[in-house]
Amino acid sequence: MEKIKLTEELSFSRMIHGLWRLNDWNLKDQELVMLIEECLDLGITTFDHADIYGNYQNEAIFGKALALKPSLRDKMEIVTKCGIKLLSNQRPDHEVKHYDTSKDHIIKSAENSLKNLQTDYVDVLLIHRPDPAMDPEEVAEAFTLLKEQGKVKHFGVSNFTPSQFDMLSSYLPFPLVTNQVEISVSHLETFQDGTIEHCLQKRVAPMAWSPVAGGKIFNATDEKSVRIKKALLEVGEELGTKELDKLMYAWLLYHPAKIMPVIGSGKIERIRSAVDALSIKMTCQHWYKIWIASTGVDVA
Amino acid sequence: MEKIKLTEELSFSRMIHGLWRLNDWNLKDQELVMLIEECLDLGITTFDHADIYGNYQNEAIFGKALALKPSLRDKMEIVTKCGIKLLSNQRPDHEVKHYDTSKDHIIKSAENSLKNLQTDYVDVLLIHRPDPAMDPEEVAEAFTLLKEQGKVKHFGVSNFTPSQFDMLSSYLPFPLVTNQVEISVSHLETFQDGTIEHCLQKRVAPMAWSPVAGGKIFNATDEKSVRIKKALLEVGEELGTKELDKLMYAWLLYHPAKIMPVIGSGKIERIRSAVDALSIKMTCQHWYKIWIASTGVDVA
Amino acid sequence: MEKIKLTEELSFSRMIHGLWRLNDWNLKDQELVMLIEECLDLGITTFDHADIYGNYQNEAIFGKALALKPSLRDKMEIVTKCGIKLLSNQRPDHEVKHYDTSKDHIIKSAENSLKNLQTDYVDVLLIHRPDPAMDPEEVAEAFTLLKEQGKVKHFGVSNFTPSQFDMLSSYLPFPLVTNQVEISVSHLETFQDGTIEHCLQKRVAPMAWSPVAGGKIFNATDEKSVRIKKALLEVGEELGTKELDKLMYAWLLYHPAKIMPVIGSGKIERIRSAVDALSIKMTCQHWYKIWIASTGVDVA
Repeated sequence: MEKIKLTEELSFSRMIHGLWRLNDWNLKDQELVMLIEECLDLGITTFDHADIYGNYQNEAIFGKALALKPSLRDKMEIVTKCGIKLLSNQRPDHEVKHYDTSKDHIIKSAENSLKNLQTDYVDVLLIHRPDPAMDPEEVAEAFTLLKEQGKVKHFGVSNFTPSQFDMLSSYLPFPLVTNQVEISVSHLETFQDGTIEHCLQKRVAPMAWSPVAGGKIFNATDEKSVRIKKALLEVGEELGTKELDKLMYAWLLYHPAKIMPVIGSGKIERIRSAVDALSIKMTCQHWYKIWIASTGVDVA
Repeated sequence: MEKIKLTEELSFSRMIHGLWRLNDWNLKDQELVMLIEECLDLGITTFDHADIYGNYQNEAIFGKALALKPSLRDKMEIVTKCGIKLLSNQRPDHEVKHYDTSKDHIIKSAENSLKNLQTDYVDVLLIHRPDPAMDPEEVAEAFTLLKEQGKVKHFGVSNFTPSQFDMLSSYLPFPLVTNQVEISVSHLETFQDGTIEHCLQKRVAPMAWSPVAGGKIFNATDEKSVRIKKALLEVGEELGTKELDKLMYAWLLYHPAKIMPVIGSGKIERIRSAVDALSIKMTCQHWYKIWIASTGVDVA
Repeated sequence: MEKIKLTEELSFSRMIHGLWRLNDWNLKDQELVMLIEECLDLGITTFDHADIYGNYQNEAIFGKALALKPSLRDKMEIVTKCGIKLLSNQRPDHEVKHYDTSKDHIIKSAENSLKNLQTDYVDVLLIHRPDPAMDPEEVAEAFTLLKEQGKVKHFGVSNFTPSQFDMLSSYLPFPLVTNQVEISVSHLETFQDGTIEHCLQKRVAPMAWSPVAGGKIFNATDEKSVRIKKALLEVGEELGTKELDKLMYAWLLYHPAKIMPVIGSGKIERIRSAVDALSIKMTCQHWYKIWIASTGVDVA
């Protein structure tokens, strides 16, 4: 599989596996080991976590699988996130869901992720959400310390606007390596608000969360989803596939920003279908048919 | 007439003649030669085209006039555009109106413009609309090749936001020389969304399309147009003119961004009236009376 | 009191006294001298004016107090503003409220401020509002001349967006030292539109006007204000105070952008309460409880 070079030392697989719903998949440890191995066989080497996924449980589930087969660790890149504090029985001191990007919290959260994941380092740590009260000097101190200690190799952000990205960057002694944002046929905002242009300008490849629009195109009950589904199927007819998710991934892969979709499925056949999207060659006109179906208006 | 220096080697006349509606004017070739000569006599040396104007026909109409009197070519700057694919009997392979800024399309479109215009080069080629799927590396390759071959002297964009402008610029080995955007007493968006500020910051003089608001102020049926017309006439009374279009041009010319209005008329008396606007000296208070009439609210 | 360093030579007190409503306070000259001295005793050394405050009268009222006790001048930093032309019996030639940032007006306005304030210089002159017709070259010429003449030491802006700030900066031979914008628990726009991030990126500490939301939280008649008041009181219970204004100031002071609130009160007890906010130590969770009450939605 194509690799996307994020820095001199770091590359991600073009398709990324996301563990957001790992706890819902009800996998036994050995089954998760198998799923990871199947991903690696497909060329998916990058795995996306967050401290809070699965009510703060998913990192530990993944960590148990790694402990069962430690040789897997060197074959993968692990991404995790910090900065959101959930209302949770796991965190009784949180009285309201909020963000915390203090030096203290970033370091504690990262160290906790290492413990849960049963690993010595994560490849990339992301700030999960832009924190309007973020002190960029504290973030810079936390990142620098974690990097010096070898606990985190590289840093990025998630759901940041261009100005938030640039502001934080200006305080860091190293570049942010990615911005994980929502991108799909049904969610064009990041194309329209300058986020993806900013990625292109900064030569930062974005990760795409919810790349198949959370499933709403498959059922397609609302008008917009109906339009998109119809356009996907029309384009699919020319391209020789009826698989909606494959077409939605192909639409993202067509774009020059080197979008890296985060596949959120625990079923290997769906993951395989996503990977198959890499062989689809959309044309410019195909891409626009889907764009126009999504916006609901012709281009100007 | 005042010239606006865009680069060391390139200047535009402050007022520009636009050929968008050339096919509607029903001019015989010799009449078009006369119109061009009258423009040149007035000091208008810059002529604005696009591949798609007149259903892909207008460049060729202009080209025939140039062929009748080849000595005109050296007296003018020709601007044309590419990147939109119209639904058109001229382009039966287009199934939906869309944008295409691939290397292949830019080069083919520019070469086709040269053939239609019966000239060896165009002075400036613009990307007509921001393409959300634009690959800036392909654009850079196309521009560089066209420049090396002498087919296009300089490059610019049209309807680009600041972030789109900066993104593309970051891939080019030479600066973009202009951004042609909609600016008029009735269309203040480019003042309000940072586009004109960005032009000032980058020292890029913008071209203004639809500079007299497409004629809707003359009839003034809607409330906003009625307010604007009233304010223009009030200001005109102090300035000694009742010509609405002259006042609308003067309002643009007042602005420090060196806005270059694209005059879209085929009638020499209307073009002359536009040029006369250069001698009008609005005050700051005049300018604001018209601004406030357009926004419909007092300044803060 | 904490000082905020704006340049190598210029520092403001963290809390600033604002003279916007000076004419409403009906102070005798000697009473104003006393108020100024009490501010200075509290550590408030920075005083915020504008040419237009009090229908163009407030600078002169303040100037009379300075004339009564000239030794005060060296103990304070004076900020004033220019660029708005009010409809006013004091300015009969203004036919409509508008902005004017011409070289001529900036210089005349600044010189008039010096005369009214009975001082040889102001520490900082701000452009009061972004002027869509601003000629940045004229502003640069005016600023440069005023600085060379020693009439104004430093320059800044007010209510500028990031792109307006950057554009003007690009024409100036020295940095803008502040951006005075509206920030309060009830006015989050400057957090949400990139303004405060831009201040952090440019290392420019913003001044906050209307930092206690113009008083509407005290009465709290609308839904949003009711929510904010409730959250402030809940947080206040944990922090040991029921003073709403102190809590609103503390919320601003928590933020890492080094926001400098402009206290608009003529009552020394309210000023003292504002200064007391400096000793309150909010937590991240407190800050977010108030943020969420203001937006009316949970964080994402």
